[in-house]
Amino acid sequence: MNHQENLTAYLQSFVNELVRNGIKNAVISPGSRSTPIALLMAEHTHVNVHVHVDERSAAFYALGMAKALKEPTVLVCTSGTAAANYFPAIVEAKISRIPLIVLTADRPHELRDVGAPQAIDQINLYGNQVKWFMEMSPPDAAPEMLRYVKTVSARAVAAATKEPKGPVHLNLPFREPLIPDFNHLEKYEADDPYLQIINGELTVSDEYVKGLAARLTGFSKGIIVCGEMNDGNFSEAILELAKALDFPILADPLSQLRSMEDPDNLIVDTYDVFLRNEDVKQALVPEVIIRFGSMPVSKPLTIYMRELEALQIVVDGGAGFRDPNQLTAEMVYCDETTFCRKLIEHVEHSKGNHRQLWTSLNEKTKQEISQVADITELSEAKLFHLLADLIPDNSVLFVGNSMPIRDLDTFFHKQAKNISIYANRGANGIDGTVSTALGVGAAKRKPLYLVLGDLTFFHDMNGLIAAKQFDVPITIILINNNGGGIFSFLPQAQHPKHFELLFGTPLDLNFEHLINLYGGQYSVVENWDHLRALCTDAESNFSIRLFEIKTNRDENLKEHRQIMAKVSQEIQHFLRDEGK
Amino acid sequence: MNHQENLTAYLQSFVNELVRNGIKNAVISPGSRSTPIALLMAEHTHVNVHVHVDERSAAFYALGMAKALKEPTVLVCTSGTAAANYFPAIVEAKISRIPLIVLTADRPHELRDVGAPQAIDQINLYGNQVKWFMEMSPPDAAPEMLRYVKTVSARAVAAATKEPKGPVHLNLPFREPLIPDFNHLEKYEADDPYLQIINGELTVSDEYVKGLAARLTGFSKGIIVCGEMNDGNFSEAILELAKALDFPILADPLSQLRSMEDPDNLIVDTYDVFLRNEDVKQALVPEVIIRFGSMPVSKPLTIYMRELEALQIVVDGGAGFRDPNQLTAEMVYCDETTFCRKLIEHVEHSKGNHRQLWTSLNEKTKQEISQVADITELSEAKLFHLLADLIPDNSVLFVGNSMPIRDLDTFFHKQAKNISIYANRGANGIDGTVSTALGVGAAKRKPLYLVLGDLTFFHDMNGLIAAKQFDVPITIILINNNGGGIFSFLPQAQHPKHFELLFGTPLDLNFEHLINLYGGQYSVVENWDHLRALCTDAESNFSIRLFEIKTNRDENLKEHRQIMAKVSQEIQHFLRDEGK
Repeated sequence: MNHQENLTAYLQSFVNELVRNGIKNAVISPGSRSTPIALLMAEHTHVNVHVHVDERSAAFYALGMAKALKEPTVLVCTSGTAAANYFPAIVEAKISRIPLIVLTADRPHELRDVGAPQAIDQINLYGNQVKWFMEMSPPDAAPEMLRYVKTVSARAVAAATKEPKGPVHLNLPFREPLIPDFNHLEKYEADDPYLQIINGELTVSDEYVKGLAARLTGFSKGIIVCGEMNDGNFSEAILELAKALDFPILADPLSQLRSMEDPDNLIVDTYDVFLRNEDVKQALVPEVIIRFGSMPVSKPLTIYMRELEALQIVVDGGAGFRDPNQLTAEMVYCDETTFCRKLIEHVEHSKGNHRQLWTSLNEKTKQEISQVADITELSEAKLFHLLADLIPDNSVLFVGNSMPIRDLDTFFHKQAKNISIYANRGANGIDGTVSTALGVGAAKRKPLYLVLGDLTFFHDMNGLIAAKQFDVPITIILINNNGGGIFSFLPQAQHPKHFELLFGTPLDLNFEHLINLYGGQYSVVENWDHLRALCTDAESNFSIRLFEIKTNRDENLKEHRQIMAKVSQEIQHFLRDEGK
Repeated sequence: MNHQENLTAYLQSFVNELVRNGIKNAVISPGSRSTPIALLMAEHTHVNVHVHVDERSAAFYALGMAKALKEPTVLVCTSGTAAANYFPAIVEAKISRIPLIVLTADRPHELRDVGAPQAIDQINLYGNQVKWFMEMSPPDAAPEMLRYVKTVSARAVAAATKEPKGPVHLNLPFREPLIPDFNHLEKYEADDPYLQIINGELTVSDEYVKGLAARLTGFSKGIIVCGEMNDGNFSEAILELAKALDFPILADPLSQLRSMEDPDNLIVDTYDVFLRNEDVKQALVPEVIIRFGSMPVSKPLTIYMRELEALQIVVDGGAGFRDPNQLTAEMVYCDETTFCRKLIEHVEHSKGNHRQLWTSLNEKTKQEISQVADITELSEAKLFHLLADLIPDNSVLFVGNSMPIRDLDTFFHKQAKNISIYANRGANGIDGTVSTALGVGAAKRKPLYLVLGDLTFFHDMNGLIAAKQFDVPITIILINNNGGGIFSFLPQAQHPKHFELLFGTPLDLNFEHLINLYGGQYSVVENWDHLRALCTDAESNFSIRLFEIKTNRDENLKEHRQIMAKVSQEIQHFLRDEGK
């Protein structure tokens, strides 16, 4: 076979095997060296191709799709710095356990480290930030090489989706000419993959579960903590387990449990507020904590757990180690849903009325917090309190890092609408947020709302082009406090010298121009009625609409402190009245 | 000493030692974990601090400064994906041999791999893309620890500036509280560094040079090829050597030799055009090539050198291997200027009149090319031909990758103005171009012109904020052909299916809005007189001005082909008339 036939047969086998192993989406950035793989992806009837010029945004977009679909997205780029631009999203994917298959085209061996154009060292380019790396052979259609390339293809999918899920990287060297021979393409037949890899899941023995159930029954005071989890089966199972144990569930906004039916009132969602109060912490001393998912957003909760002497049990289906407090006494490497189901079978109802206090504190706090609804001025706190109201049922809410995710945690409570909440909480970066949100939106095809601050928005302005190019309508609520609002809450704020230079970092940009660049709709929110009218303008046909809420960092700090002081005082009274 | 005193003394020693070893500039991105190092940099009277929110742009900006100043810029960021955003610029710095000192703040050891927020694995984060990595100790002011931290500081500068120059990475773990104690800061005294590291330079023996000189004298046909070099001493030395040898110098646009006085007419700058002609190549067969700098931009030159049987000698003061043709017979690891100076002493004038033909072909080609001046429509070719005319003396010209740098090579010839030309020709990426240009501009403080295409401009839109924030005026000539113009020149263009999707990639953006975002001046160029008027409007006081030239990819391809065909024909006639 000649060069082109080798290239074509080898890569078609590779792509077909990806598809047969379940791959549906590829995000491709333009380039020359990647031509053969890009063309074969575009030609494939079963691959949705999204072409994104900026590789940094492209990778976050792919991450968003993978996050929403819970299956790997493929990334394709050319050689050189293009591949380096994937790095931030790869780092986030690794730590937040999102499957990605990164395909970087490369110069062939004879053009490496010899000053050839666009040739960098791509071997292990992403180091420890990917789960698996393979430097692939130059294309070759010998039977044993087709077996090889199909096997690598299947292994890439399996490696990306094996728990803990994450990114994998294949580096593909190509010689010129780079054009496949379309006359030699075989028609794709949906078929079993050449290689099926069955990723087993972690489980624990019945003996362990029985023993644990017996021990749990002995405790009268227990709590369940759920960090980020994104699995409907788990949500059901954990509610059943909590009911069986009569333990409250402290549910992080990313646990998806704040948008669940909760007939038994098991969910506690205001702990971020009431666990700031020392008396409350004294009154709520559990003997056991069972924790699932990643570490919760709430800093008061983290500090609370750090101060306890309770037995801390962490269940992790990805077999990592997610406890910065290092107070875990039992780390259970078991699929979380399996763990719940197994435990439910053996558990007996615990005896205490511990949950009652959590529930009543939660209700009292919620009642107090709800007074932020009376704030007449535009306010970050009230925005998050109102959010569930403003957003339609059956929608996706993506939340920026830094202050928005924290405010969401504090002010967005359990409600009846089906709102899926997402954020990039692996490495908590302010990068790639717009793109990740659009990737989620493209996968979910539901109304997409993104709430974020001005620095986060600025960081990924490029990502917004995906809304226009891939037809993913997005509503952006931009909280513009002209700089880094979170720093006002940190000790740095006590040192005014250099503060605005290093931390405040105002950009002084009028984002209307940016929205015009992408042909979107821009509005400055004048007041709450205006925001409500904008959000409910369901008739409007849009690609991008941005509602800008201008706030002030100093006033926001003051308002947060006032709200927290008042709520804390009321909770204290409540606690005293309850005789605790 | 308490925590804060340890932190302060340790980091002040570190920063002072950087400064005493010559560091003057730091580019800092906002973050919490990096607070102590950021504050001490900002507090230091001898460090210019530039605060840049987007770390990707920040790193390219630092790269541009380092490129122009030929000394390391320091980068400072917080932990997490912030550090990953530096990766593209680090890759470019490594391969283009630009010194950078990358300081990433990190969580301390006890908060690593335990699910703590914003904690990723930063050990060897950049893998092979940095020259040196050190995981540093937590701050400690014991005398031996101050010796340690000052030694690492001095070594970082030395490692970054040792040939081949490049990026180094120090990872700094910090525990809370993160605020240094300003009361314990000592006043900075300019002093000798604690540790001076003298980076020796490569030289070769007199015996080798004498032998080479003798051999060269035996050749009647030799050429010198200069790729990217950026050293005034070298420019002088190479002209003297060429004169002594009577060899022509094929001077890449980034060799800086096209802006030199050249009284002996040694510089050949149109080879990219005439080496496309087979008859010319037959007539110009050197016996020896001496090459300096990185591989030249010109593909015709690379192909020409590939087809020769000449003795190829490459001189590389960075001791790399920059010959993708792998036809180098002698690779001389010696400082380039030293090599020239030593060789000049021993060389005797070679006998041939070989140089005459190169010179006359160069002049004939230039004369033919100059006819593009007659093109009345807006044209990419004519733009680069006119460029030296449009740009003031004593200015900086930064050129985007992909087509602009190639068109510059083809159409921008030797001229009398002092125009320093820069591009990112390590990995040839289209990323980070705006930021690198602004970094060069900030360092040079001369009129800054950036010529680039629309995809390249889009890729680093964020970088433009530096013009506004750091007061670096920039004139941008944007060649907007709505997509990836270079692909029209490649074999991909023969396959219209998927072409616009994967390679053409039109963005359909009106960049006027973007310029409005940054408060710049925007003009669509109507004709050549208009462009000239815009460029020479020296009275205008601006931060950003962008002149957009709208072109068409298909027409540009056609025009390039027509020009090349016509010039080639004329050169052929000339050659025949010369009797070659």
